[in-house]
Amino acid sequence: MSRGFQLAERFSGVTTSPVRDILAVVNRGDVISFAGGIPDGSLFALDDFRAAFDHVLSTQGRRALQYASTQGEPELLEQVAARMARQLPTTPDQVQVTSGSQEGIFLVGQALLDPGDVVLVEQPTYLAAVQAFSLAGARLVAVASDDHGMLPDALNAAIAAHRPRFVYLIPTFQNPTGRSMPAARRREVADVLLRTGVPLLEDDPYGELRFEGEAAAPLAALPGMGAQTVLLNSASKVMAPGVRIGWLRAEGPILRAVEVAKQAVGLQSAVTDQLAVARYLATCDLDAHIARVVDVYRERRDAMASGLASRLPAGAEVTRPEGGMFLWARLGGGADTAVTLPAAVDAGVAYVPGWPFFAAEPDRSTMRLSYVTNAPDVIERGLDRLAGALGW
Amino acid sequence: MSRGFQLAERFSGVTTSPVRDILAVVNRGDVISFAGGIPDGSLFALDDFRAAFDHVLSTQGRRALQYASTQGEPELLEQVAARMARQLPTTPDQVQVTSGSQEGIFLVGQALLDPGDVVLVEQPTYLAAVQAFSLAGARLVAVASDDHGMLPDALNAAIAAHRPRFVYLIPTFQNPTGRSMPAARRREVADVLLRTGVPLLEDDPYGELRFEGEAAAPLAALPGMGAQTVLLNSASKVMAPGVRIGWLRAEGPILRAVEVAKQAVGLQSAVTDQLAVARYLATCDLDAHIARVVDVYRERRDAMASGLASRLPAGAEVTRPEGGMFLWARLGGGADTAVTLPAAVDAGVAYVPGWPFFAAEPDRSTMRLSYVTNAPDVIERGLDRLAGALGW
Repeated sequence: MSRGFQLAERFSGVTTSPVRDILAVVNRGDVISFAGGIPDGSLFALDDFRAAFDHVLSTQGRRALQYASTQGEPELLEQVAARMARQLPTTPDQVQVTSGSQEGIFLVGQALLDPGDVVLVEQPTYLAAVQAFSLAGARLVAVASDDHGMLPDALNAAIAAHRPRFVYLIPTFQNPTGRSMPAARRREVADVLLRTGVPLLEDDPYGELRFEGEAAAPLAALPGMGAQTVLLNSASKVMAPGVRIGWLRAEGPILRAVEVAKQAVGLQSAVTDQLAVARYLATCDLDAHIARVVDVYRERRDAMASGLASRLPAGAEVTRPEGGMFLWARLGGGADTAVTLPAAVDAGVAYVPGWPFFAAEPDRSTMRLSYVTNAPDVIERGLDRLAGALGW
Repeated sequence: MSRGFQLAERFSGVTTSPVRDILAVVNRGDVISFAGGIPDGSLFALDDFRAAFDHVLSTQGRRALQYASTQGEPELLEQVAARMARQLPTTPDQVQVTSGSQEGIFLVGQALLDPGDVVLVEQPTYLAAVQAFSLAGARLVAVASDDHGMLPDALNAAIAAHRPRFVYLIPTFQNPTGRSMPAARRREVADVLLRTGVPLLEDDPYGELRFEGEAAAPLAALPGMGAQTVLLNSASKVMAPGVRIGWLRAEGPILRAVEVAKQAVGLQSAVTDQLAVARYLATCDLDAHIARVVDVYRERRDAMASGLASRLPAGAEVTRPEGGMFLWARLGGGADTAVTLPAAVDAGVAYVPGWPFFAAEPDRSTMRLSYVTNAPDVIERGLDRLAGALGW
């Protein structure tokens, strides 16, 4: 009787996120997880958020429970615009609230992509963005990248060859590699984009989680790039993911298209959470909170980096990010981290195999390791299990 | 420099919702609005929701602020399944939480529709569903309908002619007309769908807002239809829209496709709100709350129905719904409610012109009037303004 449910073609190239399937497994039992990009909940500003929700529901409860505008609550638009304006001039009317930056990625895909259109992505890139673009029918083309991110010459050649609708980049503390694009490379990449007129979708959820080194401004802040870039940002990594609040900055008609897509997807983001995040931003010191989180994450990055350095087999490589949530290891040789994952989980440790992050020619010896969820001693124990299971 | 942002083809047929544009206008100044489907916020169970949020953030705050599963929080899945099981057997694993039922409509469109596919809809139908299906590239075909909803013979012929991917119905207190499909018509429609194997997307956000008459079970509850139907439901009309919590019930592989689409759209619905709604359902008496709301809305329906009866010009028709939020008036003659709207707004009253609700051949003399937002005396005053502005 269910013969009627034929899935759309767009699902032929889309599978569920392997990250999330693994998360489902590791929530069972005593597994030390380096898999998910899960902030340490013990660091949440819980009292501040409880106070913010309480204030909102006590003083403007009927508004918080009611329908609202699709763009977002004015208080939140103002807070977000003021924060973004530290990096580039931003007014509230240039902001659209989204349900996490994942929805931002999806909405931009809906606004700009026709079936068969090409999106240029880093190699490797964030796999849930791949999912979102695939649902819009896009074809993803990976552009050669080095430790500083996408290569400008390769980008130039790919634009000429594929005429992409846009380029998708995570320039700072990239997911999955943790690498960042230095200021000079940003200028080179922006030059290519400005010369060719190809828009940029710049995803920046991790930028404020900097442990060391000098911050480079978003590409959107470079001369001329503001009008050609959609800049995505989120409460998830620096405040709390459970409220599902993100936002994007753009200029011109694309804002209207994103808003129409947002209407169709779900009318508006949860008003309760929008007002609570706005209240938190208006009354709490997010910078001080981030500084506390960064101190803890830095220590964990150190624990995982040094723990890996002493355990990884000869010939393996690992990144040492200056911030964010992830390390990226390349084992090399004939290793296949998807094949070895079950043994690792049996041994009580989880990671994410690297292959799903590649839009093309996956390096199957790679893996993504998150260091933010666990304390240094747990990281040590997890790495012991990992080394044992993988025969390092 | 922004030459790069070319909007996707799917936006060529999609415009912003006229309802929401009008809402933006009527929020300014002293306009009595019959336009939006906006619940009366003074009826929200605000104390109960404040207590629910406080309980969640006090006892499981770190969980509420953290990432969670895409399907939904177990407590909410259980509460929702138990409530749906009053009408048809439903287990928690058959439920997907959505950000309002609007997101449910969108996700099902993503799961089932390829560009060019046909969806059969009522004439008229809910315009935001039209938006959501259009973004998936679908073509909407209106099926002839009478006061009892879609005509089975016309449905049968349309299926043969158009080979639709699914049929979209709001069988109870339909938006925009307020009409309901009686039990006998439901069986006839289900027979056609079962015989042809065409799936049903059954949207039921208003069903519990019944003022009088006997409730008919959802089509999904008819023998054989459970496996062939996605049934949508929501907290928006019976609890509060601001939390953006809805849910759908389905069986089989489509659940997985909807979950993958949900991952791509935004990972999960706000965890805070999911847990708060679950807590509300577990500890409060929603039936008693709905009974209170229904008593108020019934009085307002009566006020608007009798107020219209004494004012409408000769030849005009108006529905008298047994529940829900909307009346539907057909002025007939050469009236064009889109043309007369500015005069109405100038006179201090707003409605929604009927034409956007038609997938084909709009009757431009129609209008949708919501009676739930305003008290009877305000309704009277609004109808006076309306009659004056439209020359009744």
